[in-house]
Amino acid sequence: MKQLEDKIRKVGRPLSEHVLLVDMFLNHQVDCTLMRDIGREFARLFADAGITRVVTIEASGIAPSVMTALELNVPLVILKKARSVILDGGVIQTEVFSFTKQSSYQLTLKPEFVHVGDRVLLIDDFLANGEAATGAAELIKKAGGTVAGIGIVISKNFQPGLKRLRESGYRVEALAEIEEMGEGYVRFAGEAK
Amino acid sequence: MKQLEDKIRKVGRPLSEHVLLVDMFLNHQVDCTLMRDIGREFARLFADAGITRVVTIEASGIAPSVMTALELNVPLVILKKARSVILDGGVIQTEVFSFTKQSSYQLTLKPEFVHVGDRVLLIDDFLANGEAATGAAELIKKAGGTVAGIGIVISKNFQPGLKRLRESGYRVEALAEIEEMGEGYVRFAGEAK
Repeated sequence: MKQLEDKIRKVGRPLSEHVLLVDMFLNHQVDCTLMRDIGREFARLFADAGITRVVTIEASGIAPSVMTALELNVPLVILKKARSVILDGGVIQTEVFSFTKQSSYQLTLKPEFVHVGDRVLLIDDFLANGEAATGAAELIKKAGGTVAGIGIVISKNFQPGLKRLRESGYRVEALAEIEEMGEGYVRFAGEAK
Repeated sequence: MKQLEDKIRKVGRPLSEHVLLVDMFLNHQVDCTLMRDIGREFARLFADAGITRVVTIEASGIAPSVMTALELNVPLVILKKARSVILDGGVIQTEVFSFTKQSSYQLTLKPEFVHVGDRVLLIDDFLANGEAATGAAELIKKAGGTVAGIGIVISKNFQPGLKRLRESGYRVEALAEIEEMGEGYVRFAGEAK
């Protein structure tokens, strides 16, 4: 998605080989017009997938997801990050390790919000190792839903997430795919070295 | 806002005199069409306020806020809830006590995202004691902005937040005002006892 790549080039801050700050437009300050256009693009890409529900992970996934769900005219479900295992709360959980934070959290869902037969589009802001997406997919399946697609705003293709999810059989669409980066530069998929 | 009151009556779950579960449409499962209409309503209510920026608090405030900011065509800024004081991170913080969770967090803002001269519309999902809104307003002012309005999705009028914020001079608009509630019932402002 050229508009997104342009935005990353213009205001994204690649700090190292692994860290891209996008707090200018995606996860602290948010460009809502861009979010609307991202929502439209996900809706277009998955128009044939029979999506009945969008699922995302709090908090950075919410802005692009609410626009996607609006466009597809389906409910959005936000998976919560709990610090600990919740007993007897009527929820299902799975542990996810965050490489960024070097700690684990319990991804949490009330199973009443994903139904048997639901065709879910899972949306997240970043894909790196794929831990969060894999955990979210597990919860969706535990609740009886099918992961009909995974939409990623920015994929770090030099990390194994995209490859892993596709090898697991998921249909994954990433709006910006970064092949390589370093302090002050970014190379997207399809660009010459 | 009648559409919102109807939704609360239909799928909200008043559990006690103080607790209203809205996870069917606002903070776990999200009705995105309702969020769009809430965004339009806030934009209409504050159309004359010269808003240059919308600010909200993660995570439940994001869905209605992104729609409001889109409608007003201004950036959204999401205040983060950090567990501890961040030193040397280029951020400003203020401690907020959550009565719901009976614990405190550090509301956090990179001051570069609110500018001197900004006229901010602060949006949050619930108003009860007003602790979160007061903390957010403090951060906005610290960064040089003016709180030109506060938009609340649901105000619990039987708690002191709405009165306190108005007494502090803020212009507050709440889309649903609950005067009284109990297990299984809700009475909105303007309704007979």
